[in-house]
Amino acid sequence: MNNVEFTDIKDKIDFERELVPVVVQDFEDNEILMVAYMNEEALEKTIEEKTAYYWSRSRQKLWKKGEESGNTQKVIDLYLDCDGDTVLLKVKQKGGACHTGHYTCFYRKLTDDGFKEVESKVFDPNIVYGD
Amino acid sequence: MNNVEFTDIKDKIDFERELVPVVVQDFEDNEILMVAYMNEEALEKTIEEKTAYYWSRSRQKLWKKGEESGNTQKVIDLYLDCDGDTVLLKVKQKGGACHTGHYTCFYRKLTDDGFKEVESKVFDPNIVYGD
Repeated sequence: MNNVEFTDIKDKIDFERELVPVVVQDFEDNEILMVAYMNEEALEKTIEEKTAYYWSRSRQKLWKKGEESGNTQKVIDLYLDCDGDTVLLKVKQKGGACHTGHYTCFYRKLTDDGFKEVESKVFDPNIVYGD
Repeated sequence: MNNVEFTDIKDKIDFERELVPVVVQDFEDNEILMVAYMNEEALEKTIEEKTAYYWSRSRQKLWKKGEESGNTQKVIDLYLDCDGDTVLLKVKQKGGACHTGHYTCFYRKLTDDGFKEVESKVFDPNIVYGD
């Protein structure tokens, strides 16, 4: 995806619902790191800069992943699903992906006793984001 | 998750938007197979039966994955993300996950020449679904 232009591939992506969900996967071990959402602008900037941008549904703004924490996501590969309405990014994750300090947002696993944390933290969110 | 009751963990999941996106991952090689959506009933049945159920947004109905094709998904593990509004399933996929005949729905990769198919089909959808 080094030299592709967003305008050349834009029509392949179904933005009918405005936002497309994006699955973010570690390119080395295939661990799922998070799911976030992109609008057209976020996808365009992601492809141009090879670093992940999303649309924050809670803050209603464009958001460069890692802009505050430094935990950026370098985009290695980008895939599109059969319906053209879901994107998969394979990334090189700096630090950890989750705002809680975990490497992945999916650190809770369903057990016979309910959801249990199965991953320890890789950074302290109080230090990274401030109190 | 052998003996967990849906009613015991229901309050951990944020159904404020009614549907939660579900990332489906092959439990053996960690390949991402698809993204689908669950409402409460779909999640309850998935946990009870250890086979994946979704809510079809296009058909507006509950849908047991593989009910027509036979390509069911046996649920090995279920994870919840930090915000409680996205689910990750690790599954044993029968046949292929995609209605196009590919093993994964993410069979198109962004290259310098746009999106290119990078996976061949594992079944013939005309045979599995009929013409």
